[in-house]
Amino acid sequence: MPLETDTPPPVASKLAELQRLLGEVSDLGRSAALLAWDERTMMPPGGAQARAEQLSTLARVAHERFTSSEVGRALDGLREWAESHPYESDEASLVRVAWRDWEKARRVPAELRAEMTHAASLGQQAWEGARAGSDFTAFLPFLERNIELRRRYISCFEGFDHPYDPLLDDFEPEAKTAEVRVVLSELRDGLRPLVSGIAAAGDIVDSSCLHGEVPLAEQRELGRRLVAGLPIDDDEWRLDSTVHPFAISISPSDIRLTTRYEENYIGTAIWSVIHEAGHGIYENGLPNEHRRNPLCGPVSLGFHESQSRMWENWVGRGRPYLRSILPLLRDAAPTQFANVDAEQLYRAANRVEPSLIRVEADEVTYNLHVALRFELEVEIFEEKLSPADLPEAWNARVQDYLGLGVPDDASGVLQDVHWAGGSFGYLPPYSLGNVIAAQLWQRILGEIPDLERLIAAGELVPLRDWLRENLHAYGARFTPPEMLERLTGGGLDVAPLLDQLSAKYGELYGLDR
Amino acid sequence: MPLETDTPPPVASKLAELQRLLGEVSDLGRSAALLAWDERTMMPPGGAQARAEQLSTLARVAHERFTSSEVGRALDGLREWAESHPYESDEASLVRVAWRDWEKARRVPAELRAEMTHAASLGQQAWEGARAGSDFTAFLPFLERNIELRRRYISCFEGFDHPYDPLLDDFEPEAKTAEVRVVLSELRDGLRPLVSGIAAAGDIVDSSCLHGEVPLAEQRELGRRLVAGLPIDDDEWRLDSTVHPFAISISPSDIRLTTRYEENYIGTAIWSVIHEAGHGIYENGLPNEHRRNPLCGPVSLGFHESQSRMWENWVGRGRPYLRSILPLLRDAAPTQFANVDAEQLYRAANRVEPSLIRVEADEVTYNLHVALRFELEVEIFEEKLSPADLPEAWNARVQDYLGLGVPDDASGVLQDVHWAGGSFGYLPPYSLGNVIAAQLWQRILGEIPDLERLIAAGELVPLRDWLRENLHAYGARFTPPEMLERLTGGGLDVAPLLDQLSAKYGELYGLDR
Repeated sequence: MPLETDTPPPVASKLAELQRLLGEVSDLGRSAALLAWDERTMMPPGGAQARAEQLSTLARVAHERFTSSEVGRALDGLREWAESHPYESDEASLVRVAWRDWEKARRVPAELRAEMTHAASLGQQAWEGARAGSDFTAFLPFLERNIELRRRYISCFEGFDHPYDPLLDDFEPEAKTAEVRVVLSELRDGLRPLVSGIAAAGDIVDSSCLHGEVPLAEQRELGRRLVAGLPIDDDEWRLDSTVHPFAISISPSDIRLTTRYEENYIGTAIWSVIHEAGHGIYENGLPNEHRRNPLCGPVSLGFHESQSRMWENWVGRGRPYLRSILPLLRDAAPTQFANVDAEQLYRAANRVEPSLIRVEADEVTYNLHVALRFELEVEIFEEKLSPADLPEAWNARVQDYLGLGVPDDASGVLQDVHWAGGSFGYLPPYSLGNVIAAQLWQRILGEIPDLERLIAAGELVPLRDWLRENLHAYGARFTPPEMLERLTGGGLDVAPLLDQLSAKYGELYGLDR
Repeated sequence: MPLETDTPPPVASKLAELQRLLGEVSDLGRSAALLAWDERTMMPPGGAQARAEQLSTLARVAHERFTSSEVGRALDGLREWAESHPYESDEASLVRVAWRDWEKARRVPAELRAEMTHAASLGQQAWEGARAGSDFTAFLPFLERNIELRRRYISCFEGFDHPYDPLLDDFEPEAKTAEVRVVLSELRDGLRPLVSGIAAAGDIVDSSCLHGEVPLAEQRELGRRLVAGLPIDDDEWRLDSTVHPFAISISPSDIRLTTRYEENYIGTAIWSVIHEAGHGIYENGLPNEHRRNPLCGPVSLGFHESQSRMWENWVGRGRPYLRSILPLLRDAAPTQFANVDAEQLYRAANRVEPSLIRVEADEVTYNLHVALRFELEVEIFEEKLSPADLPEAWNARVQDYLGLGVPDDASGVLQDVHWAGGSFGYLPPYSLGNVIAAQLWQRILGEIPDLERLIAAGELVPLRDWLRENLHAYGARFTPPEMLERLTGGGLDVAPLLDQLSAKYGELYGLDR
């Protein structure tokens, strides 16, 4: 590492010690990532029980080693030296970021962590049964237990403005409930008229070319060709099939993408692959020279999602890109696409329809699903809403925001796994990601004026390089607010997203602006 | 674990502590096994550098934890209790086996281990270049360094009869150089007349049906069908492609088999797959309830090889099995096998031809390759042979045992990677495995009288169950001599192997006995 040059010997040896300790923790974490990837893509079913034990041991050993006093002493011994360097230098950033993580990890007693993990595991099992039977009552005690444990978790932290802040912080460091509330309310209030306008325009967008049977072998080949056309080196990724698509990196140059294929809907093979590749492109651009320390991470979940969404929606559902991949679609599904032109494909790719299920939602209504969950989570932790009353509150808000009646809890409050696993504060960053993507896109359009022409020509490296230079290469060096300030000169701003969506869908659905 | 019942509380808590410590070490080791499997089957090339770091960390952490004083204290606190139980009980065996491993692992200083790993890595790199250029001189300094480090390794141990004993012990616990010398000499001397007889008989065995182009997709499907017909549960294995075939288990019920396919020789797709599946069947039968402690291991490398060889050669090259898979071969390669009958297939599968390369050797000449390496290794560690003189000694012995001239070192002394990686004592167990397989086969024929009929009918479970009950289920509870004594009532005996090979090849080549 470049850090080792120019440091006086006592500091150099402390730094080497810190790097050794952090390197071990990183290697254990990356190993766990590979085990998790394998569990979901390759493992024979017989491996499940032992795999749970292996993952639990890796997590425990990594946590023990990271939260050890050894790491604390190494950090403490380097603070003065780190602070003598500029804020954004490797030196200052490594110690600052590692210290923040260490201090945060130390606050939570091992027993509480174990209880949370155990309750999450029981909750997920109970949720599977409850969702299958659409039986919220059976799930309620497990949900209440998760909430109770999260309150104890919150009490491990100090100095926050709102009890929901520490939960948000796990996914979006430094995010404040008050600010997120403003952002999501503005977004919600800005989107509702657009959704109504689209509904009033009638079902005028034809997406039938995306529906119809395409053999899975053809779809897999299409997925492979799509990723091959995106800006990741051929030697640094692979794409496999899973039930729930995800992207994970075993190192910045070892990116594992997964996707699901649906026999009767080729859209999953297109946009789920591009979405996960977007995550992969971010991980691929993280600073490889820091791969064994905490600087080699994303800024936040929200920033991660800004990247996947940008490639999926801003690039992947835009006219130039769709025009460029039409020949691949015709190869994969000649019957469906032989007589479809680029404009018809663009319209099909951007059909809006309010629906009950978040993971199936389009680009416009998606954020309403997130706003709804955020509001309910905050009310629970403000003790204004009892968990027992969740189904009623959920259904009322779905009616209000999306104009839909919820027929049963399986398509309502029980649809997502997150609460079953004790994850609160996890979904708001998804919408923050959309907001950030729009803010970035606005700036990129100014800096790469011929972006659309490049994309239409399949030249995606300039966009990737801009993102890499301005965002990816910094890794986790800056907090989300710091990073956003550097990128946009300000904070979270919903205006670009609302403007871009209004312009796009106004044109598509013939709405007056 | 059943161990926890019936133990007084202070012992129970010490036992729980030991199991916790051993469980962690086991989980780390199994995780490393998965990383190694992935590296050779799935990993994008870009992952190589980080993977080496991750594997090194897992090995170091596992070694540190296993050799800790904590483990020593836990074992010490349980010795008296363990010794109050019968020798073969879970209680006595766990403490005895863990103690042996712990005591052995503690003897080697961390710095020496690191030096050996480093030298092995450099040696392997140098070997690749040296083999490509058939340049022994370029490789010699790396070989000498490996030997020097192995001498230091030997000096960490006490009480052995021969300096080569500690090297053998790493792969074949308790094996003595003196005994192995007798076994391999008898084997060599018994096989040489057979090899001469076969050579004198002329090239009368036609194996042309195995040669000729078969598409790799067909061969992969054949490999899959062959494993599916072997006695491992469908949920507990997978088969992938690699350059060098191997089998590895992530748990007893998560068996990863790999193989290589050759476009112009379908024999690799048949017998390499069966060989690796034989290893897999052994791992699959290890005691799953002990999967997180050292009892869940093979007896030795020799015993492991006895299982792979038994399935590959005794079953897989026998008439009953070959008759049963002929329809699969006809599906995979109709042109080659449409007019081949079971007897022709049997003859093709068992063609003998002395060759220069060990990994391509047939069942008869294979052991001569091993004997040769053993003799040279022993002479090196007895300081009777200088490493610089290895090529000459090698070539003389190949001429003597196999009747072949060695045209260059690439097809001679440089052909195998083991010495480059510092592995001495690794290959003799391969021949011991053949000897043990023949001894077991003799007993099995007595205990399952209709074995041949069962195999011809594709009923392989009775054989698997016999092996499981009498060998696999004991795991690493007994040393190789103890296990062999239980299985055969005696020690290593080359007579069954020599008898079986003489009978089989005498008939095939029409030799007088």
